[in-house]
Amino acid sequence: MPAPHILSVFDQDMDRLQAQILSMGGLVEEAIRDAALALETRDDELAARVVEGDKKIDALEEDINTAVVRVLALRSPAAGDLRTVITVMKVAGDLERLGDYAKNLGKRVPILAQAHRVEGAAASIKRLAKSVRLMLKDALDGYARKDLDLVRDVLQRDVEVDQMTNALFREFLTHMMEDPRSITSCMHLLFISKNLERMGDHVTEICEQIIYLETGTRPEARPKGTSTAQVDVPYPGSRT
Amino acid sequence: MPAPHILSVFDQDMDRLQAQILSMGGLVEEAIRDAALALETRDDELAARVVEGDKKIDALEEDINTAVVRVLALRSPAAGDLRTVITVMKVAGDLERLGDYAKNLGKRVPILAQAHRVEGAAASIKRLAKSVRLMLKDALDGYARKDLDLVRDVLQRDVEVDQMTNALFREFLTHMMEDPRSITSCMHLLFISKNLERMGDHVTEICEQIIYLETGTRPEARPKGTSTAQVDVPYPGSRT
Repeated sequence: MPAPHILSVFDQDMDRLQAQILSMGGLVEEAIRDAALALETRDDELAARVVEGDKKIDALEEDINTAVVRVLALRSPAAGDLRTVITVMKVAGDLERLGDYAKNLGKRVPILAQAHRVEGAAASIKRLAKSVRLMLKDALDGYARKDLDLVRDVLQRDVEVDQMTNALFREFLTHMMEDPRSITSCMHLLFISKNLERMGDHVTEICEQIIYLETGTRPEARPKGTSTAQVDVPYPGSRT
Repeated sequence: MPAPHILSVFDQDMDRLQAQILSMGGLVEEAIRDAALALETRDDELAARVVEGDKKIDALEEDINTAVVRVLALRSPAAGDLRTVITVMKVAGDLERLGDYAKNLGKRVPILAQAHRVEGAAASIKRLAKSVRLMLKDALDGYARKDLDLVRDVLQRDVEVDQMTNALFREFLTHMMEDPRSITSCMHLLFISKNLERMGDHVTEICEQIIYLETGTRPEARPKGTSTAQVDVPYPGSRT
């Protein structure tokens, strides 16, 4: 019986790929949490570990890509299996990008630790980071358990992340105007917020991939908060 | 002779994919050029066309992904051919991202047209956008002609883009400190610069994919300019 044999080898390959995706996702969750914690506690060492740890995430993506190409070459999966394999590769790509953003946050920690302190900023960033991290956690749980309700719920939560980011943008811009000494700090905080918002977008992309994989159709256009590209905080008393 | 027949069908598929990639790249080049031009001439209509035009770029990526999956399912390409197919999909992903960044630039044009004018900013952004656009053009030319020298040259040029971005960061931060009315404008300009720098990174990823495809080895770690994550412009007279 060669057919069942081949099938089960493919299933083994897929199980291994799935496990790699989940462990990659676990590392990214950790990186997000640690980067936000390092920012809050001004812990340069923890931040450095996040930056360094991104190499492991990148290496995992490489491994997954290699395994995907191997599966494609050796098993020539058809239709549904093929879609699963391609999804794994795309999800790995999104996770790699999420890791990059966490690394970028880590890189900004030493500068922010030295720069003018913006009251409450680290706590706000931590809240935003937590929302994004929990989105990722639930997306991966939904993926592992094929729980599409959970995955769809994550898609909805991205709107909250957009709203939080917008509120932070206004807060940091107002700070800059009121106290020009905070300009460099606030610039880094704005970039961190924007990156967290983009991380939310990557998680929604993962969710959309999972839904497409399980249902064969793309989810409808998801609700979006106002884009920070449109944020306009006029300088008090200025004409603009 | 079934073998040569199958081979030529695969080649036809690949030629079509290649053509799609190049036309997608052409659209992205245009979007970058038009977005920068719209910023310079404060042309909201042109900016809106860039934003709208991104749908066409996204649709092309979808088409390419569908075609890739079709080729994988029907032709089960081996080794080298498989690598080509995967590369096409990855390059399409990078191009889609480049299109998104151009769209984001377009979205910021109406806000910047209304906001406090920052002398010389649009011209600086245009120069940076031109460098990125030419990097993309040469990367795609190198891809089409399998000219690896050209592709490697593009990799080197990313350092200049990083340097230009850093210089712009300092310029805009200084502006913000000297004239707080410029804070909102400068924030958008900082994001535009950062996005252009990231676009340069995506072009280098395309280059690395091409080199990997043609040589089977990844290029060595490329030189990087200082990261804008480390930019620190102290407020004049402040202790920071």
